[in-house]
Amino acid sequence: MSSPERDFVTAHSGDLHADLDAWLRIPSISADPAHAPHVAASAAWLADALRRTGFPVVEVWETAGAPAVYAEWPSADDGAPVALVYGHHDVQPVDPLELWEHPPFEPTRVEGPDGPELHARGAIDDKGNVAMHLLGMRAHLAATGRDTPAVTVKVLVEGEEESGSPHFAALLRERADRLRCDVVVVSDTGMAAPDVPSAVVAMRGLADAEITLRGPAVDLHSGSFGGGVPNPLHAMATLLASLHDEHGRVTLPGFYDEVRPLTDRERELMARVPFDEAAWLAGPAASRVATGEEGFTTLERIGARPTAEVNGMWGGYTGPGHKTIIPAEAHAKITFRLVADQRPADLADQVRGWVAANLPGGIQADVHVPAGGVSPCASDLDSPAMAALLTAIGLAFDRDPADVLFTREGGSGPEADLVDVLGAPLLFLGAGLPTDRIHSPNERVLLPMLHRGAEAAAHLWRELAAVPLRPR
Amino acid sequence: MSSPERDFVTAHSGDLHADLDAWLRIPSISADPAHAPHVAASAAWLADALRRTGFPVVEVWETAGAPAVYAEWPSADDGAPVALVYGHHDVQPVDPLELWEHPPFEPTRVEGPDGPELHARGAIDDKGNVAMHLLGMRAHLAATGRDTPAVTVKVLVEGEEESGSPHFAALLRERADRLRCDVVVVSDTGMAAPDVPSAVVAMRGLADAEITLRGPAVDLHSGSFGGGVPNPLHAMATLLASLHDEHGRVTLPGFYDEVRPLTDRERELMARVPFDEAAWLAGPAASRVATGEEGFTTLERIGARPTAEVNGMWGGYTGPGHKTIIPAEAHAKITFRLVADQRPADLADQVRGWVAANLPGGIQADVHVPAGGVSPCASDLDSPAMAALLTAIGLAFDRDPADVLFTREGGSGPEADLVDVLGAPLLFLGAGLPTDRIHSPNERVLLPMLHRGAEAAAHLWRELAAVPLRPR
Repeated sequence: MSSPERDFVTAHSGDLHADLDAWLRIPSISADPAHAPHVAASAAWLADALRRTGFPVVEVWETAGAPAVYAEWPSADDGAPVALVYGHHDVQPVDPLELWEHPPFEPTRVEGPDGPELHARGAIDDKGNVAMHLLGMRAHLAATGRDTPAVTVKVLVEGEEESGSPHFAALLRERADRLRCDVVVVSDTGMAAPDVPSAVVAMRGLADAEITLRGPAVDLHSGSFGGGVPNPLHAMATLLASLHDEHGRVTLPGFYDEVRPLTDRERELMARVPFDEAAWLAGPAASRVATGEEGFTTLERIGARPTAEVNGMWGGYTGPGHKTIIPAEAHAKITFRLVADQRPADLADQVRGWVAANLPGGIQADVHVPAGGVSPCASDLDSPAMAALLTAIGLAFDRDPADVLFTREGGSGPEADLVDVLGAPLLFLGAGLPTDRIHSPNERVLLPMLHRGAEAAAHLWRELAAVPLRPR
Repeated sequence: MSSPERDFVTAHSGDLHADLDAWLRIPSISADPAHAPHVAASAAWLADALRRTGFPVVEVWETAGAPAVYAEWPSADDGAPVALVYGHHDVQPVDPLELWEHPPFEPTRVEGPDGPELHARGAIDDKGNVAMHLLGMRAHLAATGRDTPAVTVKVLVEGEEESGSPHFAALLRERADRLRCDVVVVSDTGMAAPDVPSAVVAMRGLADAEITLRGPAVDLHSGSFGGGVPNPLHAMATLLASLHDEHGRVTLPGFYDEVRPLTDRERELMARVPFDEAAWLAGPAASRVATGEEGFTTLERIGARPTAEVNGMWGGYTGPGHKTIIPAEAHAKITFRLVADQRPADLADQVRGWVAANLPGGIQADVHVPAGGVSPCASDLDSPAMAALLTAIGLAFDRDPADVLFTREGGSGPEADLVDVLGAPLLFLGAGLPTDRIHSPNERVLLPMLHRGAEAAAHLWRELAAVPLRPR
């Protein structure tokens, strides 16, 4: 479906490629302190690019960690709603370097089966997803003949997402007034497949717990005491074995009380997402079988249902050979992925209740559940904002809006902070693909996806202005 | 009950004290290579002491590790049986040094509630137990007016027991001809209490296993995969939780098949051993409750029943904070204490069968059960040799032989090698007490126990000559 937006993107895609080529050469690895100057240079580059694009307000916001970039282009329209774009300009480390086919910070164009690709660290995660908004904004203005966007567009691009966004929530709270908005457009995700336009509609939350079980006051000789006193490792094994029941459900008391049940419509929509389970298992999952909570598909299990995973456990002797002890302590680390409307703050009591119910005599438990955690978030599938997003994506992919699929992100990120602090609903517009190898060697972006993403962004600003975003 | 043996021991106890005072000043810590010269000096001291005592054959046997001392005093009696005394001249390390009330290698006499004590590292474990045989042999000869003992007495005192006796089995095999004997007298244990003469009649065997469970090929992100693929830590917890059933019994298939049931008489004899469970829990066990296999007392559980203890387990992330992974692997180390007539060689199949029966789909297991292990050993309570031992102990403690109690040693040691290689039955004659703090600061020996031990040894050589030790 031809449109002025598409025509502009097509005519100026070279600008997007040139921007990316320059930005991707900056190794803005936030996890490595040695790269702090590069993260700063990346922020400076982006600030300059936003100014070139025409944003009248562009600021670099220092934090206790890496700098974020803020920009704002107010709409001249009276009462225009405000959209805030979220992304990040830092990138993952590149180890193992020897597995890269091209140097990670020398962007390299490769012709692939689905079209031209650009290979580089950060190509899609997240520099590609952010850069497409530069071209998208220009296409929106050019196509609509406007001097200012139809909605006020704010942009917040942080520099620590790949390091866990340690200062992001504080930044949001500190700048809440400047960041006030009616909708957040998260551009750090992707779509189901090149020919399957889709929108993320939920992310899981996160809570973690560390458990220490104590038995004897000191490590005991198993010859003298073996078989006569409680062994904390046995207690830990029994406890962790009780974390799931025989149906794969988490046994924490009250764990499912606030879980919003999947509606038949949501399940039907998820079932429409193409998913090759065998390929998923053979590929990144690198696992032998799919498993999990009974009564749900794999896509539902990893995206729409809460889970509990033991991430680490240890205790006793772990060196070579054997040491005949009953150890004094055993330890485990567990994280829980949460879905709407679970609250991370509820987990402490739930974990304590579960441990207390499964603790054998003679064993004492220390349960540490850090305050905080990450809230789950979910978009309202029927909101006016979602309708605008589906229209924009549909136009860019030549599909009916009703054919744009919904996907769910199993991970947890700073997006929840945006909801918590700014109180605005989330939309997700990202041009990534499951095959883009983010966080791995040979990360890439499929350039046609990026062009469509830029076009969708251009449509989105127009569409958002046309729907009622604010309660009257 | 006065006897020439007791009179001699009483008259010459000063010799025993002088011997011990000299020997205990040699810090023969076998675990510390820096002490190798002291271990050699300890062997030389003992060889000299055996020569002084009158043993016509005394040799220091070098091994790939620390030297052993061998001595032999043939009986002039035609067809006299052969007894082999086993002990060790190396000692445990002394850490933590600051907890010693007296320097560990400056033997110090302390008046205690049960009589004079000698405090020093090795005071009972095992220099005291060995030194009492020097005086015991002299008492035997003096009391019976003999020039040679009533039985041929061989002595083998190794130098690596506190380091796991790594070269002991090889030494036994190499010297099997010289060591041929009709009975082994192990002097490395003790009795139930100062007023409770007793004899150890069994030691547990040992087998160990290391288990690795593998799930995904690499650590996976729990946001992307959590709840959808098998987690090796969950599998390990479930596996280890299945190691015991609800009655505290080990679930390995066939594990109990060869266990010789405790007879009513054996249980009655064990029940006569004084045992303050509350004190045991509060003291060295440092545990909160007693637990274990249903239907057995704590003394039976730790001495007469086979057990399985997880000594270590580990996998995934064990550092600070959390890391949201499904790890690729989980590990566990398990040791099994065995009782007669279990065979360590049977454990490999039993462990594999148990793992296979409890392994969830999608998890692969590597089970490593090292060859070897330690066989359990048990004395025949009704053998002529046991009758001789009970008579000897009874005489030394002024008790009827029928009042000498039987105890069982829950640990495992080189004694099993003596049975395996030499094929001779074991007797245990030791003067230690549960309160002697072996392996701990302030190790001591109660000198009256040592005097009685020397007297019992003197009686034993006479008694053993009077019973039929060899099959006719």
